[in-house]
Amino acid sequence: MSQKTKVVVTRQLNGAAQTLLESHHELEIVQWNSEKPAPRPWLLQNAPGASGLLVMLSDTIDAALLETCTPTLKTIASFSVGTDHITLPLLKTHNIRLGYTPTALTSAVADTAIMLTLMAQRRAGEAVASVKAGEWPAMPWAPQLLTGPQIAGCTVGFVGFGRIGQAVLKRFVGFGVRRAVYLTSRPGEVAKVDYFDVLGGKAGIEAVPARGWEDLGRESDVVVLGCALTESTRHFVGREFLALMKRTAVLVNVARGPVVDTEALVEALREGRIFGAGLDVVEGEPNVPADHPLLKEPRCVLLPHIGSATIETREQMAEESVRNLLAGLSGEAMVNEVEL
Amino acid sequence: MSQKTKVVVTRQLNGAAQTLLESHHELEIVQWNSEKPAPRPWLLQNAPGASGLLVMLSDTIDAALLETCTPTLKTIASFSVGTDHITLPLLKTHNIRLGYTPTALTSAVADTAIMLTLMAQRRAGEAVASVKAGEWPAMPWAPQLLTGPQIAGCTVGFVGFGRIGQAVLKRFVGFGVRRAVYLTSRPGEVAKVDYFDVLGGKAGIEAVPARGWEDLGRESDVVVLGCALTESTRHFVGREFLALMKRTAVLVNVARGPVVDTEALVEALREGRIFGAGLDVVEGEPNVPADHPLLKEPRCVLLPHIGSATIETREQMAEESVRNLLAGLSGEAMVNEVEL
Repeated sequence: MSQKTKVVVTRQLNGAAQTLLESHHELEIVQWNSEKPAPRPWLLQNAPGASGLLVMLSDTIDAALLETCTPTLKTIASFSVGTDHITLPLLKTHNIRLGYTPTALTSAVADTAIMLTLMAQRRAGEAVASVKAGEWPAMPWAPQLLTGPQIAGCTVGFVGFGRIGQAVLKRFVGFGVRRAVYLTSRPGEVAKVDYFDVLGGKAGIEAVPARGWEDLGRESDVVVLGCALTESTRHFVGREFLALMKRTAVLVNVARGPVVDTEALVEALREGRIFGAGLDVVEGEPNVPADHPLLKEPRCVLLPHIGSATIETREQMAEESVRNLLAGLSGEAMVNEVEL
Repeated sequence: MSQKTKVVVTRQLNGAAQTLLESHHELEIVQWNSEKPAPRPWLLQNAPGASGLLVMLSDTIDAALLETCTPTLKTIASFSVGTDHITLPLLKTHNIRLGYTPTALTSAVADTAIMLTLMAQRRAGEAVASVKAGEWPAMPWAPQLLTGPQIAGCTVGFVGFGRIGQAVLKRFVGFGVRRAVYLTSRPGEVAKVDYFDVLGGKAGIEAVPARGWEDLGRESDVVVLGCALTESTRHFVGREFLALMKRTAVLVNVARGPVVDTEALVEALREGRIFGAGLDVVEGEPNVPADHPLLKEPRCVLLPHIGSATIETREQMAEESVRNLLAGLSGEAMVNEVEL
């Protein structure tokens, strides 16, 4: 009897990705074949003996999980751009390769950031809600009705200025944004990689590194959070930062929920200290009940983490995840591998 | 006693525009000084003897109104890009000049069109509503959750391709839109004016005239309505047009409500024959009750006609309207005058 290589896949995959996976007859595929996340006990029970795991950001890959499947585990393929659900140092210890899909979702997330910027500036949440509530007949067109700041002429501040931030900047060019400032892990340093040919004034917008978070907070009309979640970005947007922001400025988060201190944001919105917020992510998601304080703020738009939710992107992410899994098993080059 | 020139202004104006108006001491200003529209009887009562009117699109300028103020009336300044609230042939008959503000709001309306395109593709209406309803905890992140088509690679069809349509195209460049087709009152003819340096492949997107509405309907992934309301554009989007559209396509209306046959659109959305719709305007607005059939369609986003509702644009529109009024009285050149 030939020994098959066991892989555990924690979710249903779409057609092309599933077909590719199943074409590898050397694999024993143990799959949670549902649209819903695999329960943690299922993963803990099935991981033992696995050489590869294909996981989502809803799966926590920590010491307890890894204990069940080292030393057989050779590789993990994460269907995500972020890796904060995975305890990275342990992978290094156990010589486990990690694939992820950072490039596939850039466009979709950047599109979401633009949508959230406009929704926050143009009060789309309030506007849609008032129409749905049947209030339009009593609020006929008026010059000052539901007005908000205009994106043309704005300064946009980027917290994190990798692929996603730069893709957002590229999209802002056509809107007449005036200036971009950015903050990375090396404050004051010029961005090294120009992913979309938009830096150095090539796009007609000046993009310069901020000297620090204070400058970025003070100068920006739009703050776009597109950074990874690390100990230094956790609660980056808190009381201090919000206090520096302009009253006409909006905050956009397409990064990770905990980059923003929810309580501080609620306070700033309630007191009108910033104009609005557009969030794709929030601390504690998906546990956001209907009476969550952010949902009481009319100037806050909150999406259920759909930044990369386009049909095209999710297909590409699934296929790249399978390719990363296969490459991790065979020792070949992944589409994108995390340097551990 | 010096005879003052009477002008009737149907709404409160913002600071700069009001100051400019009041600086003209030769004027007797009769003003409806409220955020709310002037009632029709007020306008009918005050119009007699007026040399100039500064009106909003909520004021109907028809034979009955003009009868009260010709022959004193020399000029009308409309705080709008559209003129469908004004019976134009009568102005010509009575030699009344008409100013409007078509250029001021281009950017704001184009921004709205992009926002509505993304909201319709990315299911922002559904997404926001589900979070507000407290449904997020029961719908954790999943690869296919709330996915929609991606704007990159799309063909955008423009119905009307003047300033606003071209400004929308300019914004779409950064999103990786693949192709643009447009339909004007001269089907098949190349657009004469290149307002924003985006035609002739200059923006990296091919933009070509559609041979007719059938081609535009069939080829487009996004249909943007940015035309004037005329007898030939009324119900342009009806059953026939919707039947040609792709199931993955979205419809965006930043023009006038009656360009879309509401009943036909509701039917198409209900049956999933198009992917979604983003509307800033609708037939019969503002009389849209909470049980309006469009509001029952989760894939339809309806805004209360806030396309040009930015602080900057409304200030500029107000100031240009006052300038047009003054120019119309003194016989000088307006910022923008309608050729009657």
